[in-house]
Amino acid sequence: MEKLTLIKVGGKIVEDPTSLKQLLSDFSKIEGYKVLVHGGGRSATAMAAKLGIQSKMVNGRRVTDAEMLKVVTMVYGGLVNKQIVAGLQAIGVNALGLTGADLNYMRSEKRPITEVDYGFVGDVKEVNADILADLIRKGVVPVLAPLTHDKAGNLLNTNADTIAGEAAKALSKHFEVTLMYCFEKKGVLLNENDDESVIPKLTPALFKKYVAEGIIQGGMIPKLENSFEALKAGVRQVVITRAECIHTDNGTAILK
Amino acid sequence: MEKLTLIKVGGKIVEDPTSLKQLLSDFSKIEGYKVLVHGGGRSATAMAAKLGIQSKMVNGRRVTDAEMLKVVTMVYGGLVNKQIVAGLQAIGVNALGLTGADLNYMRSEKRPITEVDYGFVGDVKEVNADILADLIRKGVVPVLAPLTHDKAGNLLNTNADTIAGEAAKALSKHFEVTLMYCFEKKGVLLNENDDESVIPKLTPALFKKYVAEGIIQGGMIPKLENSFEALKAGVRQVVITRAECIHTDNGTAILK
Repeated sequence: MEKLTLIKVGGKIVEDPTSLKQLLSDFSKIEGYKVLVHGGGRSATAMAAKLGIQSKMVNGRRVTDAEMLKVVTMVYGGLVNKQIVAGLQAIGVNALGLTGADLNYMRSEKRPITEVDYGFVGDVKEVNADILADLIRKGVVPVLAPLTHDKAGNLLNTNADTIAGEAAKALSKHFEVTLMYCFEKKGVLLNENDDESVIPKLTPALFKKYVAEGIIQGGMIPKLENSFEALKAGVRQVVITRAECIHTDNGTAILK
Repeated sequence: MEKLTLIKVGGKIVEDPTSLKQLLSDFSKIEGYKVLVHGGGRSATAMAAKLGIQSKMVNGRRVTDAEMLKVVTMVYGGLVNKQIVAGLQAIGVNALGLTGADLNYMRSEKRPITEVDYGFVGDVKEVNADILADLIRKGVVPVLAPLTHDKAGNLLNTNADTIAGEAAKALSKHFEVTLMYCFEKKGVLLNENDDESVIPKLTPALFKKYVAEGIIQGGMIPKLENSFEALKAGVRQVVITRAECIHTDNGTAILK
């Protein structure tokens, strides 16, 4: 099978023009088929504030009421996504910006209300990767915004890590997929105060051990759980690293 | 050649949830290949006002400074476009929202400054219809936002009538295209105070006569000039009517 690299970058990188330019240049140099997934939370929070809408977070996740859904639709689907697409086209990458509604490539359902009502947030139910795979084989590079739809007319806010994981799994039927999660550190750290203490390889056994010891904690836990799940579902390789390192062998390789 | 209907609807229709729903239902019933082009000026003006940005208009056209470009990118490319796409998917139309940057389907150049500096406004220079035609033949329905790009990383604001005309012309190499401009009246009127005084057929000679007599004036003149130009460039049929009439024989047919 042909190789495909799917890279997820957080909001911080894509929201600063200088780091975005560097990222797009690095991304354009990746050989073979590729997909970019982006966040945009900081821009959404800033735009909401300008509009007098307060951002509510519960357990580190955004609560998306009707007004906030409009903001994220504008910011993720419009501003951030289209600036990335235009930036990639400028350097010869035939980008196509997509939400889950476009081509109905990712359908979700509104998250049921349990202790927390996250509002208009979607849990992914179905990924139609065939049409994406066709486009990718023609040289198109999908740029995926963190928005899905319920096929009943509603857009839903969906975590960019989740979009990346679900897209990577579905595309594994068509390609040998490497999934890279980029964040602000070189990789998963043994010591959060030492940026050089990157764990080079992480197995499920090591993961359990580090979680038990408190070495791995917080937002890194769901990211790694997603990674192991993606490997089980057919993704060939998962790497966690910094955006600046997507061309290097730095970072943490997640192993089955 | 197979038939394709390209419909341009103004902001007023797509910005009201009730009229939008009706439009999408009517649009979904059009047989054969189709494309939807939308405006969104009223939403952009309203969003700009909420953000404390004043909308400047010269000769009925928006002046797009850097801040306003962000607003139109969010509103046209994000909010309006994605709500239409999600609405169409809900009724079984496989919509794909696009700006000119996506797939590099429409490249423009920033309008030169003459008496007026319109800011980040693009004059269309190149339409890559082949990739659109491929998608359309696969059952995809492009939904075109009034934004283009200069292939140097910049999005540019572009009049939706122009997008519709240029897309219709380029798609005429692949399809027998009917271009429909929808606005608030049933058609071009002989008497602006009589909504029933629709001119059924308009030739270039009649157009000249009515302009000279002051019967046709204002924004209708460039719309009709675009229509005649589109016919010369290979578009099979141009119709000007109301959104509610896209299934009827009402409206004004523009003839070569």
